[in-house]
Amino acid sequence: GELQEECARDQTVLLQANIDNQSGELLGYSMTRLLDKGALDVFYTPIYMKKNRPATMLSVLIKPEDEQKITKIILAETTTLGVRAFRCPRYVMRRDFKSVETKFGAIKIKHSFLNDIEKYTPEYEECASLATKHQVPLREVYDAANYCILNQQWSNISK
Amino acid sequence: GELQEECARDQTVLLQANIDNQSGELLGYSMTRLLDKGALDVFYTPIYMKKNRPATMLSVLIKPEDEQKITKIILAETTTLGVRAFRCPRYVMRRDFKSVETKFGAIKIKHSFLNDIEKYTPEYEECASLATKHQVPLREVYDAANYCILNQQWSNISK
Amino acid sequence: GELQEECARDQTVLLQANIDNQSGELLGYSMTRLLDKGALDVFYTPIYMKKNRPATMLSVLIKPEDEQKITKIILAETTTLGVRAFRCPRYVMRRDFKSVETKFGAIKIKHSFLNDIEKYTPEYEECASLATKHQVPLREVYDAANYCILNQQWSNISK
Amino acid sequence: GELQEECARDQTVLLQANIDNQSGELLGYSMTRLLDKGALDVFYTPIYMKKNRPATMLSVLIKPEDEQKITKIILAETTTLGVRAFRCPRYVMRRDFKSVETKFGAIKIKHSFLNDIEKYTPEYEECASLATKHQVPLREVYDAANYCILNQQWSNISK
Amino acid sequence: GELQEECARDQTVLLQANIDNQSGELLGYSMTRLLDKGALDVFYTPIYMKKNRPATMLSVLIKPEDEQKITKIILAETTTLGVRAFRCPRYVMRRDFKSVETKFGAIKIKHSFLNDIEKYTPEYEECASLATKHQVPLREVYDAANYCILNQQWSNISK
Amino acid sequence: GELQEECARDQTVLLQANIDNQSGELLGYSMTRLLDKGALDVFYTPIYMKKNRPATMLSVLIKPEDEQKITKIILAETTTLGVRAFRCPRYVMRRDFKSVETKFGAIKIKHSFLNDIEKYTPEYEECASLATKHQVPLREVYDAANYCILNQQWSNISK
Ligand code: NI
Ligand code: NI
Ligand code: NI
Ligand code: NI
Ligand code: NI
Ligand code: NI
Ligand code: NI
Ligand code: NI
Ligand code: NI
Ligand code: NI
Ligand code: NI
Ligand code: NI
Repeated sequence: GELQEECARDQTVLLQANIDNQSGELLGYSMTRLLDKGALDVFYTPIYMKKNRPATMLSVLIKPEDEQKITKIILAETTTLGVRAFRCPRYVMRRDFKSVETKFGAIKIKHSFLNDIEKYTPEYEECASLATKHQVPLREVYDAANYCILNQQWSNISK
Repeated sequence: GELQEECARDQTVLLQANIDNQSGELLGYSMTRLLDKGALDVFYTPIYMKKNRPATMLSVLIKPEDEQKITKIILAETTTLGVRAFRCPRYVMRRDFKSVETKFGAIKIKHSFLNDIEKYTPEYEECASLATKHQVPLREVYDAANYCILNQQWSNISK
Repeated sequence: GELQEECARDQTVLLQANIDNQSGELLGYSMTRLLDKGALDVFYTPIYMKKNRPATMLSVLIKPEDEQKITKIILAETTTLGVRAFRCPRYVMRRDFKSVETKFGAIKIKHSFLNDIEKYTPEYEECASLATKHQVPLREVYDAANYCILNQQWSNISK
Repeated sequence: GELQEECARDQTVLLQANIDNQSGELLGYSMTRLLDKGALDVFYTPIYMKKNRPATMLSVLIKPEDEQKITKIILAETTTLGVRAFRCPRYVMRRDFKSVETKFGAIKIKHSFLNDIEKYTPEYEECASLATKHQVPLREVYDAANYCILNQQWSNISK
Repeated sequence: GELQEECARDQTVLLQANIDNQSGELLGYSMTRLLDKGALDVFYTPIYMKKNRPATMLSVLIKPEDEQKITKIILAETTTLGVRAFRCPRYVMRRDFKSVETKFGAIKIKHSFLNDIEKYTPEYEECASLATKHQVPLREVYDAANYCILNQQWSNISK
Repeated sequence: GELQEECARDQTVLLQANIDNQSGELLGYSMTRLLDKGALDVFYTPIYMKKNRPATMLSVLIKPEDEQKITKIILAETTTLGVRAFRCPRYVMRRDFKSVETKFGAIKIKHSFLNDIEKYTPEYEECASLATKHQVPLREVYDAANYCILNQQWSNISK
């Protein structure tokens, strides 16, 4: 069987704009706004533009049906005068959720899979709030979650 | 009405090349050459390549009809052996120009608009030469230009 | 008069750690923790380490009396085994606060000064919450605040 | 004649994945794996993601026929749950190989050409092993190779 | 007790050079050379220099007694004409080594500690060679190593 | 003999400021101003600050006697409220100038030396203006200059 059939595959659009006349302070706000309005992902890449300008490339990954709406938000919130649009297919692993019970409390686990590939990712927000509540380093909460996951998978084969 | 109808939309090509065997000194010169030859935008992105190489990705945004001409310049001016070409539509705001009279002198303003989105951008070169001439920080010249713009828009509504 | 006398000058310590075996997810949390615990500033720099590793340098600016406390937090929260400490003087502008009344509401302004240098900075958090409340782009709120500031300074000299 | 006819032109696919929950240590290993499995090029770009996360964008340039195979490796080796695929033509210079005899030994030279554009690139691995063997700086070995190349081209026209 | 007494503290020197006239290819080689000659750490930071030059800052962390030797290597191997030297104390966690037995084989673990802070880090080279040997993703080998570590620490307290 | 005696060694100061509320456009201008006012070097490093802000670290290398003057310019030209100062010794190679006669015209060469280390660097501005004048790629002018240098050094030993 082909990978296309085996794993979910969707169409996405990557919007890009180069920004050399807006401050980082305003760009930090734009990221939040774009995520609130339905962007799948928002990220910044440092770039170097003409006239010795350290600048920032804004990238926004969206569903094709949001192209109009999100482009308008980028044009309204940022100083850019132009937005490039790249249409691209995206391979995505299927996913469901599990929960593990750690000494810090229950933690939701994202379980993603594709044929023989299987991954488990503790949910960041839950781990972060447990770390803050128990005043322990975040990596200890992740360790606790990962231990529970591995315990189910590995305990019978590892010495 | 759709955004496609409302704002100017054109086709552009984004050319990319990864460069790990040329110095920053030569790349600085290439940027100038490419802009002189009609590139719409040229920018550099820091990347990390194999064998522990800090490298640079050259990106050149062009009009579709310049694809042949600009690709040849990239191949001639840089050490790269390959140039990738991405065709992408670009949403652009319509624009015209205004002028404001500041205490430092007249400054050209780019006025861009799209439905209810409207932006005013003082022209960099004019601001920079006035700042140098008057020996004041550039941000003071921008402040003066922005004040004039806002004065026309805001004075009646702001206390 | 010397600059040392004219502007506030204090001693700071810049702590640095290179991190190649921790995820960005955990580093995002560390930033929050360090700021909560009294760090003056926390920032990340992308670096390239041996064995083709894209990595991150954590920098934490602190008051000298917090060197012990913050170093312990870095060692506890991150995977790094070593923290470098640079002692350096810092020139800082004196500052006080003002308030301006805009059409979106009152906004606090940081006023910083040093001899003939004077700067006004609208407070980010207040601007951001007004932009969200009024559902306008953040740059419009900044424009409103800057207009009020400039109005007091410039209106009599600008045409 | 058009550039398409003059230089080799092939189709490539650029795969991209944003990674915020994997360490640089593991990403360094992934680069090696992907190159071993047939990727044409692998590189990392520093990006900034939501929740204050310093992150890394993995880019893998591949032949179209490897899209399924390499996507599976990315999903297996990294923590990403999604891979974007951009199809793009690539202009490539034709190439053949030459050899020059330097005082450090023979060095292979990549000769690339396209109409009036002609470039010569000493092979890195051979230069590096000669520099290590002779315990001289690598730039001296490159100088020796470049001198030999230029000697054939330039000696009769340079004073 | 003070942190200085509790954890090892040593003196290091951070050497820095800005490089805008050397290729990434040569810089990759320099990293290897410097590590071979006793540098504690070598890393590259992307910087933007005058005249639109994308450039690289080379940083080399060394023991104070190697300042002369390593500076000479930097001047010989790179094109830079100047090397800055910052002397700085470094806080380092004490460390010893353990070994765990996983289903892939034995893996060495770096154990670092400072009062109530304790960290365990599987050795990269051993994990990488086991992943290659068993043809499994590297993260599975790390998972196996971490599981063994956590099993000793956590099994009695986690459900 | 020690390296300190063998090569010129001077004292420099590295000034640093983190900037998250100023545009790249203004920072490009600041670089030019600082170089005009006597800075030895000015460069930008991309950093990631709190609240999801892509930001820029400004670094200015200066002579110790310019610390007051240049700090004032940074505070006046940029929005930063604080400037860190690191004092550091710098190892510098001694240098003099030569000239070579190429087919494009005479080119000045920087000759730097330290014991057995010797480097030759064609002057960028002269090469760039010859490349523009002759309408050839800049790398051809560098090749011509390097060939002349190497011809004097290598011709008798290379085959
Ligand atoms: Ni512009
Ligand atoms: Ni499941
Ligand atoms: Ni609990
Ligand atoms: Ni190559
Ligand atoms: Ni108009
Ligand atoms: Ni390590
Ligand atoms: Ni005041
Ligand atoms: Ni995520
Ligand atoms: Ni230079
Ligand atoms: Ni132990
Ligand atoms: Ni701030
Ligand atoms: Ni000489």
